[in-house]
Amino acid sequence: MSSQFHDWMKSTQTQFELAFAHLLPESDVVPARLHEAMRYAALDGGKRVRPLLVFAAGRLFDAPSELLTRAAAALEMIHAYSLVHDDMPCMDDDALRRGKPTVHVQYDEATALLVGDALQAQAFLVLTEASASAERKLPMLQLLAKAAGSTGMCGGQAIDLASVGLALSLNQLEQMHQLKTGALLRASVLLGAMSGKTLSTPEVTALDTYSSAIGLAFQVVDDVLDATTDSVTLGKTAGKDAADNKPTYVSLLGLDASSKLAEKLCNDAHEALLPFGQKAQHLHDLADLIVQRKA
Amino acid sequence: MSSQFHDWMKSTQTQFELAFAHLLPESDVVPARLHEAMRYAALDGGKRVRPLLVFAAGRLFDAPSELLTRAAAALEMIHAYSLVHDDMPCMDDDALRRGKPTVHVQYDEATALLVGDALQAQAFLVLTEASASAERKLPMLQLLAKAAGSTGMCGGQAIDLASVGLALSLNQLEQMHQLKTGALLRASVLLGAMSGKTLSTPEVTALDTYSSAIGLAFQVVDDVLDATTDSVTLGKTAGKDAADNKPTYVSLLGLDASSKLAEKLCNDAHEALLPFGQKAQHLHDLADLIVQRKA
Repeated sequence: MSSQFHDWMKSTQTQFELAFAHLLPESDVVPARLHEAMRYAALDGGKRVRPLLVFAAGRLFDAPSELLTRAAAALEMIHAYSLVHDDMPCMDDDALRRGKPTVHVQYDEATALLVGDALQAQAFLVLTEASASAERKLPMLQLLAKAAGSTGMCGGQAIDLASVGLALSLNQLEQMHQLKTGALLRASVLLGAMSGKTLSTPEVTALDTYSSAIGLAFQVVDDVLDATTDSVTLGKTAGKDAADNKPTYVSLLGLDASSKLAEKLCNDAHEALLPFGQKAQHLHDLADLIVQRKA
Repeated sequence: MSSQFHDWMKSTQTQFELAFAHLLPESDVVPARLHEAMRYAALDGGKRVRPLLVFAAGRLFDAPSELLTRAAAALEMIHAYSLVHDDMPCMDDDALRRGKPTVHVQYDEATALLVGDALQAQAFLVLTEASASAERKLPMLQLLAKAAGSTGMCGGQAIDLASVGLALSLNQLEQMHQLKTGALLRASVLLGAMSGKTLSTPEVTALDTYSSAIGLAFQVVDDVLDATTDSVTLGKTAGKDAADNKPTYVSLLGLDASSKLAEKLCNDAHEALLPFGQKAQHLHDLADLIVQRKA
């Protein structure tokens, strides 16, 4: 990792965190407990991979930072709500997330349900309120809704649910992850780029290729880490997928081949960025980061 | 009820039902079980009060029917998702809704959770895809997000949750309902009107007065019906609020005063419509319908 990229990443994360806190309802606004729980779920946690992708993609076309910040916040709210609901007893029943008790453990199940619901609405709200033209924001809202919905993230979760205990093929596993985590990562890259200009078809295609590759790489690395790292380092319960009898890249391919696949996907991502030249350097480095991360 | 209003209502409901079925993902699209459950939750049920309000308000300013249909569908998806989540064991734990088993009973809890999440995203999606200018749709999306979120419907549900077993004042009860059910009814009236033109401040104020009155009337009548009608007629479990020790208008005011309050609110609603003249006739009649309904 170059020191320039490292500095950009740190300052982007810090600035985003500050802005993000202001885009969530304050915890003294009625209903205070719901707002406190929404902030508990969304703030202070995670690597902010989606915001980093938004800001890195925004550099391709010199997008304005206020719009990028709101697009990143919207994506992070959708991501946070999906984690809150995913952790609930009727789904993965997880007690630990980002090193803290999950929302339904810290508060209660009904609050966790409402926190997720309200974060999703808030995501759309903060994007509608950005200082940009309606023409600029409308396709972004449409992409966000599609990425979050039944043929995007929610659809991936439904396929994931249905696949517990089943012998999925590598193709089926890939399809599931392309929706479950891939849809939101793709949306991050596209929303960042769309914050700057209306994209041409070749630009969308190139960014799609990049996004698919890093989305899959992200999941392959997740599976590798889940099989090889302890819960404290991960900040969530390790080895859970295997224990739940869920198919993973490691269970299908083994550790070695999984690591090699992650490297190949990283190269695919780098290649897709070539048409964008030097402006894509941060997207390039983010692909490396995703594959080399340790938690 | 005039026969003209009756005919308009029936034909609006029939046409909406047809269009609505096309705005939900087909049940043979992957993930099929999720899509089937979304359709189970949203179709074939309810009085479609929100769509009727949208179409009645749309007549004020001759709004185009495609935009009205999509606004109505969006509101009905938000409403349907809130019912699915509200019925779950961690919330109201209800087994019957619109005369059918609730979604978590018919499918399972995890599916019910995802159905609600996906319906919310679909609501925003169908509105972004309407054939209208981005300038027309953007404020509508913003209003929808606000009405659905933590200072709207979700906020009302959080206050409702926190109020179980507490001695709420009449003011606190009103505040809770103005969010829990009122926010979406208000959004229905405003989205219908906004489908036709950008509203002036006096127009918004008049429609707000109308909406607040019918929103409260709706809840007062709900409480009266809950205390006086059997489950089969209601299509949901009757007497549940009292059994759950939730404050209601009937428990605070008694049956007689509650019925009188509903009539007063209906008159308030009628008065607020006077500036709109004859074009507001259907909104006028809908206020009557809400107060006189038997289920």
